[in-house]
Amino acid sequence: MEKIKIGICGYGNLGKGIENEINKSLDMELVAVFTKREPDKLTINSSAKVVNVTEIAKWKDKIDVMIMCGGSATDLPIQVPEFAKFFNTVDSFDTHKKIPEYFETVDKVAKENNHVSIISIGWDPGLFSLMRLYSNSILQDGSTYTFWGKGVSQGHSDAIRRIAGVKNAVQYTIPNDEAIKKVRAGEAPTLTTREKHFRECFVVLEDGANKEEIEKQIKEMPNYFDEYDTTVHFIFEEELKENHNRLPHGGFVIHSGNTGDNNSHVMEFSLKLDSNPEFTSSVLIAYARANYRLQKLKDYGAKTIFDIPPKMLSNESDDELRKKLL
Amino acid sequence: MEKIKIGICGYGNLGKGIENEINKSLDMELVAVFTKREPDKLTINSSAKVVNVTEIAKWKDKIDVMIMCGGSATDLPIQVPEFAKFFNTVDSFDTHKKIPEYFETVDKVAKENNHVSIISIGWDPGLFSLMRLYSNSILQDGSTYTFWGKGVSQGHSDAIRRIAGVKNAVQYTIPNDEAIKKVRAGEAPTLTTREKHFRECFVVLEDGANKEEIEKQIKEMPNYFDEYDTTVHFIFEEELKENHNRLPHGGFVIHSGNTGDNNSHVMEFSLKLDSNPEFTSSVLIAYARANYRLQKLKDYGAKTIFDIPPKMLSNESDDELRKKLL
Repeated sequence: MEKIKIGICGYGNLGKGIENEINKSLDMELVAVFTKREPDKLTINSSAKVVNVTEIAKWKDKIDVMIMCGGSATDLPIQVPEFAKFFNTVDSFDTHKKIPEYFETVDKVAKENNHVSIISIGWDPGLFSLMRLYSNSILQDGSTYTFWGKGVSQGHSDAIRRIAGVKNAVQYTIPNDEAIKKVRAGEAPTLTTREKHFRECFVVLEDGANKEEIEKQIKEMPNYFDEYDTTVHFIFEEELKENHNRLPHGGFVIHSGNTGDNNSHVMEFSLKLDSNPEFTSSVLIAYARANYRLQKLKDYGAKTIFDIPPKMLSNESDDELRKKLL
Repeated sequence: MEKIKIGICGYGNLGKGIENEINKSLDMELVAVFTKREPDKLTINSSAKVVNVTEIAKWKDKIDVMIMCGGSATDLPIQVPEFAKFFNTVDSFDTHKKIPEYFETVDKVAKENNHVSIISIGWDPGLFSLMRLYSNSILQDGSTYTFWGKGVSQGHSDAIRRIAGVKNAVQYTIPNDEAIKKVRAGEAPTLTTREKHFRECFVVLEDGANKEEIEKQIKEMPNYFDEYDTTVHFIFEEELKENHNRLPHGGFVIHSGNTGDNNSHVMEFSLKLDSNPEFTSSVLIAYARANYRLQKLKDYGAKTIFDIPPKMLSNESDDELRKKLL
């Protein structure tokens, strides 16, 4: 079997997760890792080439799919529209509000260059979006709820770390079990932000920092914490490193709807993940496979998870899928 | 908005469920119901025409999608290959073992006649198949488990009713909570048929029937009950009619898999349905919409749920979907 040639752009948690899975993959091979760092100083876990990202265009014809592993704030909005000139791409752009604009930008470049760019892949946006679409299309008379957690929110942890006097911090988003119970029972409750999730923070202070003042700053932080019930624990750095060094996450998409003479139905999809970046990597890889299939069909342009026929994620034939999984 | 013109072939629980939902639909209209019965003697719940199924070919150009609502044992394998000559079809053929052969037969007819035939739609086969595909493609190093219930199995209820001395019967399939717990914990247990599900039967006897003998016959019935722990309750007809007259069902697809350095992830999809036929109707309607979209693309032939881009189920534009659901 001819293997799909993969490039990784960005070697953080996500890039490492992808490398790890491709090392085990039967239908893909990792060709090169592109990094902003000095290639000589980066040790990776495979025999792929390490290349400075400024050289990326030279690899134009050597890579079938470039998996873009940068962040959504500053990397992806710059890199993807630029690199879609040279490559078929998959990314995990996750700033929900900016997706429509980002889609248009990437779509234009991809179409002009006969490339396929699959955007906003992962679990939310991603698999959770898919569940929202399936459930809303099937039970149109219904309500959909998304709950996140229990898991580490990188954005909220970062926000705490930016407070003067904070040395380190980890923030967990925790869904409210009582709210989930109501939704599961088909009650279609009206829930405020505060009723859906709690926030729990583990914070290491700099010497001499003011506990009360910092706790107040966290709890009142606009957008991040002010609309939530937040608990703050001050702990020592060793405890943070020992007990809060992993990146678990997960969540629930629950849709309840009615048909006929008041019959109620509940559709639920949930994820429980030991490692958010490793699971996201696995989703990106499956969509890299779909990207390759779309190239063969010359179906160019930007695509989202909504556009992709499910079978394209698999490395089995249509026949096998009908036999084994239908 | 131009409405999708729908036909219903077969007016049992499924056909009635479809009629009910299409009455509420914004983008579809029910044109005709085709029945084996005398049309004059059939009262329906809409203003659609009632037509004897022998006249179906005359409606060739008046219907965009024919939803086939017959049974998998004797109706669909005969009707769909015949009617796919005249119509674009959607069906819920659910004899898992025979799907590959059925697909080939329908595919040939649909392609020869420039029609789209979406087969085996519902929740299993259907949405559960989809979850098996997504989860296996994403976490390739993993195990998938499907549990059904708690719900009424029509096949098992029928099997009991065929026993001499049985007047009426309802059988519930019940998943084993202990087994589900192990699977959810990512233990990937090896489970026998007996360990996955229980069977509970509510049976009304004919006068003078032998309780012990019938209970033995049920519990030892090959394929249906012999590999399960089965409970049999003998009750009066009134109780059966009062407490067991609905068709609830549901189930779970749970996939656990690993990435990286022994990180475990669990993906779970579940359904809890008050009415199995009404929910199945809703799935069929969403795929009738997809059928119409595929016709516009001239993408003819037999299709399964694996082939259909998720966005085709929705009546919203791609733009709206990206804005609202991604």
